[in-house]
Amino acid sequence: MRPLIAVDWGTSSLRVARLDMQGRVQEERSLPRGILTVAPGGFPAVFQDACGDWMRLPGALALICGMAGSRQGWMEAPYRECPAGFADIASHLAWVEPGRIAMVPGLSCEADGVPDVMRGEETQVFGALDLLGLDSGLVLHPGTHSKWVRVASGRVEGFSTFMTGEIYGLLRQHSILGRTMPHDDGELDAEAFERGVHYALHCGTLLHAAFSARTLALFDRLPATALPSYLSGLVIGEELRLHQLGSGSDPVVVVGADMLTRRYELGLRILGVATRNAGSQAAWRGLRAIANTLEGT
Amino acid sequence: MRPLIAVDWGTSSLRVARLDMQGRVQEERSLPRGILTVAPGGFPAVFQDACGDWMRLPGALALICGMAGSRQGWMEAPYRECPAGFADIASHLAWVEPGRIAMVPGLSCEADGVPDVMRGEETQVFGALDLLGLDSGLVLHPGTHSKWVRVASGRVEGFSTFMTGEIYGLLRQHSILGRTMPHDDGELDAEAFERGVHYALHCGTLLHAAFSARTLALFDRLPATALPSYLSGLVIGEELRLHQLGSGSDPVVVVGADMLTRRYELGLRILGVATRNAGSQAAWRGLRAIANTLEGT
Repeated sequence: MRPLIAVDWGTSSLRVARLDMQGRVQEERSLPRGILTVAPGGFPAVFQDACGDWMRLPGALALICGMAGSRQGWMEAPYRECPAGFADIASHLAWVEPGRIAMVPGLSCEADGVPDVMRGEETQVFGALDLLGLDSGLVLHPGTHSKWVRVASGRVEGFSTFMTGEIYGLLRQHSILGRTMPHDDGELDAEAFERGVHYALHCGTLLHAAFSARTLALFDRLPATALPSYLSGLVIGEELRLHQLGSGSDPVVVVGADMLTRRYELGLRILGVATRNAGSQAAWRGLRAIANTLEGT
Repeated sequence: MRPLIAVDWGTSSLRVARLDMQGRVQEERSLPRGILTVAPGGFPAVFQDACGDWMRLPGALALICGMAGSRQGWMEAPYRECPAGFADIASHLAWVEPGRIAMVPGLSCEADGVPDVMRGEETQVFGALDLLGLDSGLVLHPGTHSKWVRVASGRVEGFSTFMTGEIYGLLRQHSILGRTMPHDDGELDAEAFERGVHYALHCGTLLHAAFSARTLALFDRLPATALPSYLSGLVIGEELRLHQLGSGSDPVVVVGADMLTRRYELGLRILGVATRNAGSQAAWRGLRAIANTLEGT
């Protein structure tokens, strides 16, 4: 097997990892060079900065998932339509340098006449299921735009995007709600977070629920320091409300291992839903699996 | 009757009107001096600028509704708790200058352990019902923070705030959705607006529905020029979804006479709900009615 340079190149960040022949991570780097920071034509130079040294290893192969494969990225790898399995992804790479550097395509699906898209999460979803030894399930990828992905027999049947992280940021930074909050979010206040989840679960719309972050503070029923956690609970609760999950539901596979992931696990626990955490290596596992399909070709 | 200087002093704007003895508007002025632009202690000077000349009329009385009566305003007029009728408001003015300048109190209510508040809309609601000769009904006051107010036998039983206008602005100006939109909103594209309302009505949460403004553009199913109207339909549709209104519902009283008001009327028509428009004079009518209670005191 060839050494793999695994690249997760998103809108706001660039992560690279060097994997050995057995797929183990030898080294990881993270750069603040998301595609929004890269001028047209600038992608080869940023890639060179990030992992040019690794690319000199004999037989090195780079696989890139994420927004770098979009129309605004380095080279477009057109979306594959759902239902789509791992093989649909792996067999439709867009080669920047034949046999050496390739983009992984994203997925698209359609519901109620409206399309939905992902780029990067598809690789993590397949990697997460592989890590957990599953071929079906509901997979949650939290983030700026959180994705809920339905997988059956190894194929992504469909998915939905929620602008949860972005709308939290907008409310936190630019709305009237942010004005009464401390400058930094601070540690998670679990009690305030859970109160927010509970309220959002039955309130019916964030447009109304969000205003409670103002009135509870106005009537001194929540201290200012608890407001960021409460608001976080409101937006995550609003997202969870839609999925009609309950104590009879199968465990949800949650991708990632950061603070955000843990908040979703906390929220799902309120609903009585168990989670299986795929950790932070899902992207690398997914890219390694794609690389494996290329061996001998 | 004394000449009335009617003042609607909100967060972002200041409107004043001079009414004659019969309650007819003689003159109106609008200033960009919402309370956010006024430093502590600066209210008397701004008031003087806005209508100092009118206050020299013999027997002039100024009644001020809106956020100027909040803790961050000129002088606090504590919230009156719902259920509350017109007399509760009129008999709890906070006098800045006894007999000459007074603040109208706002209203508070509570549902599911969460308080809600309004300041200024209560005066417009009573004024709107007065103008239409009603003493009961569901009254909608669109705006940055839209209010739905339930009135029975002349008393406000309760109300709900929706951050619709503010969240539209955040998504329009600061989110990824705004990036693909033209700089100006332009004329309302009624077809795109209605498409947004329809989608939001059955989608279940704006967190997911909002992303369609991105994907429909990405797949060239909506031109960039139609996106602001579509997004407006999404947020207004999300708000309307909550009220479970249908063709059997009583007409909704809509306060105001601007573009925003007309959008809500368009959205309610999709639900088969008639509206009665109270026009733009509701605040003045409400303040005149309060002033009338003071005659002879």
